[in-house]
Amino acid sequence: MRSHYCAELNEMNVGEEVELVGWVNSHRDHGGVIFIDLRDRTGLIQIVADPADSVEAHKVAEQVKDEYVIKVKGKVRLRGEGLENPKLKTGKIEVVAETLEIENTCEVLPFQIGDKSVNEELRLKYRYLDLRDPDNLETFILRSKVTKAIRDYFDKVGFIDVETPILTKSTPEGARDYLVPSRVHPGKFYALPQSPQLFKQILMVAGFDKYYQIAKCFRDEDLRADRQPEFTQVDVEMSFVTQDNVINTIEGMIKEAFAVAGIDVNLPIERITYNEAMEKYGSDKPDLRYDLAMVDVIDEFVDSNNEIFSNIAKDKVKNRFKALKVPGGDNFYSRKKLKELENFVRKFGAAGLAYIQVKEEGLKGPILKFMSEKSLNSLINKLKPEVGDIIFFGAGDKKTVLDYMGRLRAKIAKEMNLYNEKDYKFVWVVDFPMFEKDENGNPTPLHHPFTMPNMETWDEENFENIKSVAYDLVLNGYEIGGGSIRIHKEEIQKKVFKLLGINEIEAREKFGFLLDALKFGAPPHGGFALGLDRVIMLMRHTDNIRDVIAFPKTQKAQCLLTEAPSEVETSQLKELHIRINKPRND
Amino acid sequence: MRSHYCAELNEMNVGEEVELVGWVNSHRDHGGVIFIDLRDRTGLIQIVADPADSVEAHKVAEQVKDEYVIKVKGKVRLRGEGLENPKLKTGKIEVVAETLEIENTCEVLPFQIGDKSVNEELRLKYRYLDLRDPDNLETFILRSKVTKAIRDYFDKVGFIDVETPILTKSTPEGARDYLVPSRVHPGKFYALPQSPQLFKQILMVAGFDKYYQIAKCFRDEDLRADRQPEFTQVDVEMSFVTQDNVINTIEGMIKEAFAVAGIDVNLPIERITYNEAMEKYGSDKPDLRYDLAMVDVIDEFVDSNNEIFSNIAKDKVKNRFKALKVPGGDNFYSRKKLKELENFVRKFGAAGLAYIQVKEEGLKGPILKFMSEKSLNSLINKLKPEVGDIIFFGAGDKKTVLDYMGRLRAKIAKEMNLYNEKDYKFVWVVDFPMFEKDENGNPTPLHHPFTMPNMETWDEENFENIKSVAYDLVLNGYEIGGGSIRIHKEEIQKKVFKLLGINEIEAREKFGFLLDALKFGAPPHGGFALGLDRVIMLMRHTDNIRDVIAFPKTQKAQCLLTEAPSEVETSQLKELHIRINKPRND
Repeated sequence: MRSHYCAELNEMNVGEEVELVGWVNSHRDHGGVIFIDLRDRTGLIQIVADPADSVEAHKVAEQVKDEYVIKVKGKVRLRGEGLENPKLKTGKIEVVAETLEIENTCEVLPFQIGDKSVNEELRLKYRYLDLRDPDNLETFILRSKVTKAIRDYFDKVGFIDVETPILTKSTPEGARDYLVPSRVHPGKFYALPQSPQLFKQILMVAGFDKYYQIAKCFRDEDLRADRQPEFTQVDVEMSFVTQDNVINTIEGMIKEAFAVAGIDVNLPIERITYNEAMEKYGSDKPDLRYDLAMVDVIDEFVDSNNEIFSNIAKDKVKNRFKALKVPGGDNFYSRKKLKELENFVRKFGAAGLAYIQVKEEGLKGPILKFMSEKSLNSLINKLKPEVGDIIFFGAGDKKTVLDYMGRLRAKIAKEMNLYNEKDYKFVWVVDFPMFEKDENGNPTPLHHPFTMPNMETWDEENFENIKSVAYDLVLNGYEIGGGSIRIHKEEIQKKVFKLLGINEIEAREKFGFLLDALKFGAPPHGGFALGLDRVIMLMRHTDNIRDVIAFPKTQKAQCLLTEAPSEVETSQLKELHIRINKPRND
Repeated sequence: MRSHYCAELNEMNVGEEVELVGWVNSHRDHGGVIFIDLRDRTGLIQIVADPADSVEAHKVAEQVKDEYVIKVKGKVRLRGEGLENPKLKTGKIEVVAETLEIENTCEVLPFQIGDKSVNEELRLKYRYLDLRDPDNLETFILRSKVTKAIRDYFDKVGFIDVETPILTKSTPEGARDYLVPSRVHPGKFYALPQSPQLFKQILMVAGFDKYYQIAKCFRDEDLRADRQPEFTQVDVEMSFVTQDNVINTIEGMIKEAFAVAGIDVNLPIERITYNEAMEKYGSDKPDLRYDLAMVDVIDEFVDSNNEIFSNIAKDKVKNRFKALKVPGGDNFYSRKKLKELENFVRKFGAAGLAYIQVKEEGLKGPILKFMSEKSLNSLINKLKPEVGDIIFFGAGDKKTVLDYMGRLRAKIAKEMNLYNEKDYKFVWVVDFPMFEKDENGNPTPLHHPFTMPNMETWDEENFENIKSVAYDLVLNGYEIGGGSIRIHKEEIQKKVFKLLGINEIEAREKFGFLLDALKFGAPPHGGFALGLDRVIMLMRHTDNIRDVIAFPKTQKAQCLLTEAPSEVETSQLKELHIRINKPRND
């Protein structure tokens, strides 16, 4: 129906007869001549309906309203001197309408296309109007291009794209499953996959060697601004590989995916250990767009005359004493603002927030009086403070201190504007612990129980010290992906289950299919999963996941997009009752 | 861990030191020297472990069993004169093992890899072993390449790849929905989509212009050899297009997808109307690898002296009288076999099966005596029979005759081997009826109610004569895809609903979101959906859909692949009880 897209036209087309279709973005009558900005996927172009050129076209143009769908036939010409619109790609030209047809009308809009001030509920209710906003359209064009670049990359380096099932068995990724009652097997249910983890491992045992898939995953969790119950991950698995092989492969993908968004990623991406990330940044997903590393000053408080401090400093395993030097922080933070910071860290378990201000006249702060001269000198030597700086201190239980100091670090960086929002800083976090303690002090896997432990660190007594061959990819403080080398030998898998207190019967019930597979020539293998939604969010600088999903779930909007699913017809409901209530031995 | 894949090596690598990993495909001891066929994704290569070369490697090789995972380091050399294996891509060379490591062992196999005689249940239970069969692996590599080619194509011609939701509202494609109880909204359920139909139409209203997706779709139907409850379709929608535009676009995709499988598709693909397909081939998905077109001979029986025949011939609208000339059929079909054909068509409603045999001595057959000389001459003129041919006749109610004669045509072609199994013959079937009669004589849509009727054929009294702008793509007798131009104007949609007896309230309840969208500047649009599983089946010449799905559903295999979903834990089950039984006003 068209000869060109609107914004494909330029000065080269002047004099050409063209046919365009699209939406009336705006229209105005200027001295009897009607000007229409016509919009399609590519952008805008000005249409001129002048009765001097075509009485018929002008007559139709008079009936046109915003968001009508129209078809225009006419010649491209240069706009007159001084009438150019430099904001528009096609701003030097216009199309003189010879014929104009209305393909479809449009009711009065509930909001103007592209109006960002409209509340989200309304925008989602009329998602088709919301998506007409060129800004939103751009997101989905980007998303399409990024996934294409990812596919091109994996194809180029020899990966096989395999579809894994959506209706499957419950597997224990830890979150709540969505369940689908089976009609054929009354009383039984499918689960929607939380990830294709088991399937991709099976594919490795099957000799597929290199697998990838852009996969839908499901977790029955509450809606949040940055989380949807169905999400998309770039899922990867490789055989006969080390951690370095996987990391190199993923870095290649990252490079090509981000290039699509005009972002150049320098390779190799920096790597830090989990321990370093926790100790320096108080997070296993540190934002490294800014430095602000914490420094360990526990030695400087062993001899403190404050008993609370010296007691904390006595146990270097359980406790931490951290200093966070903020250059220019004393100039930035007023007394009032410092109080706000203290209130902030209290929420995360801090007893208070000690600090030293670095003034022209010297150091200032109540904590000074608890330090020996020797320790103070050592501290100054470590931190090298300059006038205008402020040093914050966190002390106490390791986990609590690292957590609130990490949060404090992030809060300060944001408040002091220490980084460019549009920067991209990647980091690999490696050498994760294999297990963590659950609320009862028992081991529970930090990733999943198929993660390969670093057997050199195996120590059942101190299971928290066992490292795994697991790695996370972090971007700007977000974990955008993670992976591990998997266990491919049955005896190691058994060892892990034993430590986790999973007995053989339970293990067989839950993972029998995988455990069997490990017996039949499983190759060494490992993989990775990238959270695609989050990546697009970061590329588009949005915190709202609903901006990057064409049809997001929402609590309220009563439409196709709704979180509230259909009322099921009574007959269906009844059938379900029967299915679920049917005795098992029936 | 490797320097090369096994079958990448050739004579050019002779003298090179290589590292290979893979599975022991077979091993044999030949005069103290152990020969191992090592297998990876690419194929096989011969490894030689000779104690004269490496005592250690030979010692390890002695422990090796079938399907062990091993790592080999050694030099490539030419095999000796007369020792080449021309069946193997790498048959001219071998690798002399210097070191050999066992990466993993393998238990005694439940069946030999690649053994096609093993029953399907066992093969699916050990799917990871079944998939090691190079033949199966080839299917999934092909599938991956075909989907890649499809994506490349759509990307090249400006389509946006958009993911649509899996947890959505029930929409009426006609089949049974899978339902997913909502935790957040007790008593309510999501439905898994039978297709992204409504979503892609909404994307057109949103101005996306060209959309595609390789989408999982779900229908709660019983398992069949050629049908799985979750299946994959290449889903396409375009704005501002005619039927020709869509067909051209899809033909471009078909060309590139089939080229991957080494199949050259000549474009444009032939088109026939629904009526022609039914009248000539008795099917709306005719297999055109062979001709065998039926000929209308109703005029030749109007003057029949057999009252049954002349009565049938009187009503040309309701009835059909068809002749199917089978060249060489008289030589092929014995009396006994003809009886079998008659029994076959009787199953589909035929009263019997009349025929004329064309003998050296002339025409032969009981039907001759019921025809006037004039009519017989006319018939001979139409059919131009030659000695050795046979002509079958079908007479009676139109629907019945077309159906059984179409089946007869297919059966004969198969029995007489009239076509090459490996040929590919595409055809577009166009001009479908918009409605058909349901069991009560009421109109029901042949495709779906959003299909654009050909308004020139609109005739409410004779709704069966209304054509739609719908088209199916048929390959070798299978409908591999279909699509239509959609209704983009509210008034036409209302007209269709009215004819279907769907009142406004019901229409709003079921399709409110789409109906609203049509009011706000919906562009003309249309699309297509291709059944990817079927396409891969046809490329791989299999009738079993489980051959083209990595993890198919199965009734019996008690594994990850099972149709029987997990038993849900009691707590989950209880939770579901509560959800489902909770009163609505709670």
